[in-house]
Amino acid sequence: MSDNVLFFGLGSMGTGMAHSLRRAGFRVNAFTNKPEVRQAFIDAGGESADLAAFAPEAAAVVIAVVNAAQTEDILFGKTGLAECLPAGCVVIACPTIDPADARRFEADCEARGLLYLDAPISGGALKADAGALSFMASGRPEAFAAAQPFLDAMAASVFNMGERAGAGSVMKAVNQMLAGVHVAMTSEAMAFGMAQGLPPDRVLEVVSQSAGTSWMFENRAPRLIEEDFVPAHASLTIWPKDLGIILGICEQLGLAAPITQAALDRYQQAIDEGRAHEDDASLVKTYLGEAGLDRPDREGSS
Amino acid sequence: MSDNVLFFGLGSMGTGMAHSLRRAGFRVNAFTNKPEVRQAFIDAGGESADLAAFAPEAAAVVIAVVNAAQTEDILFGKTGLAECLPAGCVVIACPTIDPADARRFEADCEARGLLYLDAPISGGALKADAGALSFMASGRPEAFAAAQPFLDAMAASVFNMGERAGAGSVMKAVNQMLAGVHVAMTSEAMAFGMAQGLPPDRVLEVVSQSAGTSWMFENRAPRLIEEDFVPAHASLTIWPKDLGIILGICEQLGLAAPITQAALDRYQQAIDEGRAHEDDASLVKTYLGEAGLDRPDREGSS
Repeated sequence: MSDNVLFFGLGSMGTGMAHSLRRAGFRVNAFTNKPEVRQAFIDAGGESADLAAFAPEAAAVVIAVVNAAQTEDILFGKTGLAECLPAGCVVIACPTIDPADARRFEADCEARGLLYLDAPISGGALKADAGALSFMASGRPEAFAAAQPFLDAMAASVFNMGERAGAGSVMKAVNQMLAGVHVAMTSEAMAFGMAQGLPPDRVLEVVSQSAGTSWMFENRAPRLIEEDFVPAHASLTIWPKDLGIILGICEQLGLAAPITQAALDRYQQAIDEGRAHEDDASLVKTYLGEAGLDRPDREGSS
Repeated sequence: MSDNVLFFGLGSMGTGMAHSLRRAGFRVNAFTNKPEVRQAFIDAGGESADLAAFAPEAAAVVIAVVNAAQTEDILFGKTGLAECLPAGCVVIACPTIDPADARRFEADCEARGLLYLDAPISGGALKADAGALSFMASGRPEAFAAAQPFLDAMAASVFNMGERAGAGSVMKAVNQMLAGVHVAMTSEAMAFGMAQGLPPDRVLEVVSQSAGTSWMFENRAPRLIEEDFVPAHASLTIWPKDLGIILGICEQLGLAAPITQAALDRYQQAIDEGRAHEDDASLVKTYLGEAGLDRPDREGSS
């Protein structure tokens, strides 16, 4: 096998992943719908060959786009990549998608002699940069074996969830469901404390040492306190997408998920208020605004 | 001041707190509505004097009953304790109550020459036994000073939230709101994973190392997995009470709290199914039952 990696999607996660692969010695050819972003990656040491020339030599394809539709488009749609890849090439699919889509992509790849790894990621942009993501992966043992050197370059840990595609996506969905509710609860609880006069930095200090804490609370509360709402990390729009996939699955299963639904409704409310472009910690503004409050802890804050 | 402590409420938390005080060398006289529980505490080294004889010598009163109504009853109601305590005695009030009640109790105590510390606790029965609870406390500096030796015997940490009663109870409510939602989400997310075939012990392993984790998830998931639903730690009924107090405050503030409301509705549903006596991790049975599932990971489980 060659050292050639085809990479799709140079967003906040993908950029760090592609550079991690490059630093590990792989020849990485990264594609995106923004020509200047592709050029910057080439300038930093990425490959510049055309897709048609590069694909037949690829040992792996890493897909870091945002959803199942884009993944399908790359593999089987207008890009038609699956027809150009060599037999035994492994497709490492990282977006958060419906497990049913993952199973379908696996079947369609296998029908063309390709290996498929259902490999959603967790960890954020900083860990992507550091090659220290978590992968919640499932797929055939041959797919794991072929993907291993590439995962080694991008991951601190790889959780093997089972021998067929789908289980990785289910695991990611479970984690995302908890994460999405905890982010929203960070704003709900902080607004509750602020509305009664508690300084939010003090609330962070106490909660982080108490039974109410969560990974997301400790991660998002500092941004909320500082009103640092540039979406460098996670924009509000991620959650209606991911929680929407999860609630769609719940409906098929006949499983109630009213807490997840309540969180999704809150994110949608913030987006309806025109704040889709903001960091998800800005959800607190929805709560305070509804109560006619304006950061009680900050005089003259706008 | 004497070393005499009047203690009210020998439940799962109170028993450990009272023994921690006793082990620290205080003379602890503990009252409860169960004579055999009081007698067991006396047999273990507690004081046995009548309340009327003991109260005039008390340096501190520690209240570890379940709600504001019981607290009020002890201090100002049929027990009428406030009239019997010596001036300068400090009342350390630990139940989770409405901050407005805490402010009222403080005013009524001060009118009688007593000090009042609004001092809700966090940490669970094991930490109560070990004298290692967290106190989220507020009150006048004189109340903190008078309470200090008694807090030292019961606490690993005391968060001073401000100089008047109320702020401690607000802080506890913020923590409890997060904790109550996270416990319910543990069941919602675990049911979602189990319904799609993921082994729950594997989900615990992965989530605890990922961004979806919470203190409560890691604490309750093991009980959920083992179906260990004896309410040794936290019965389902705690949450409608505590979240109900919180939602009442939200209503007064004009603040929405729909995620908290959704969690409360889930606990109420489980109670309506006749499971009030079970541990709160048994909420998963409500989710699985609604979907017609019965612990997909356990063949023949009932």
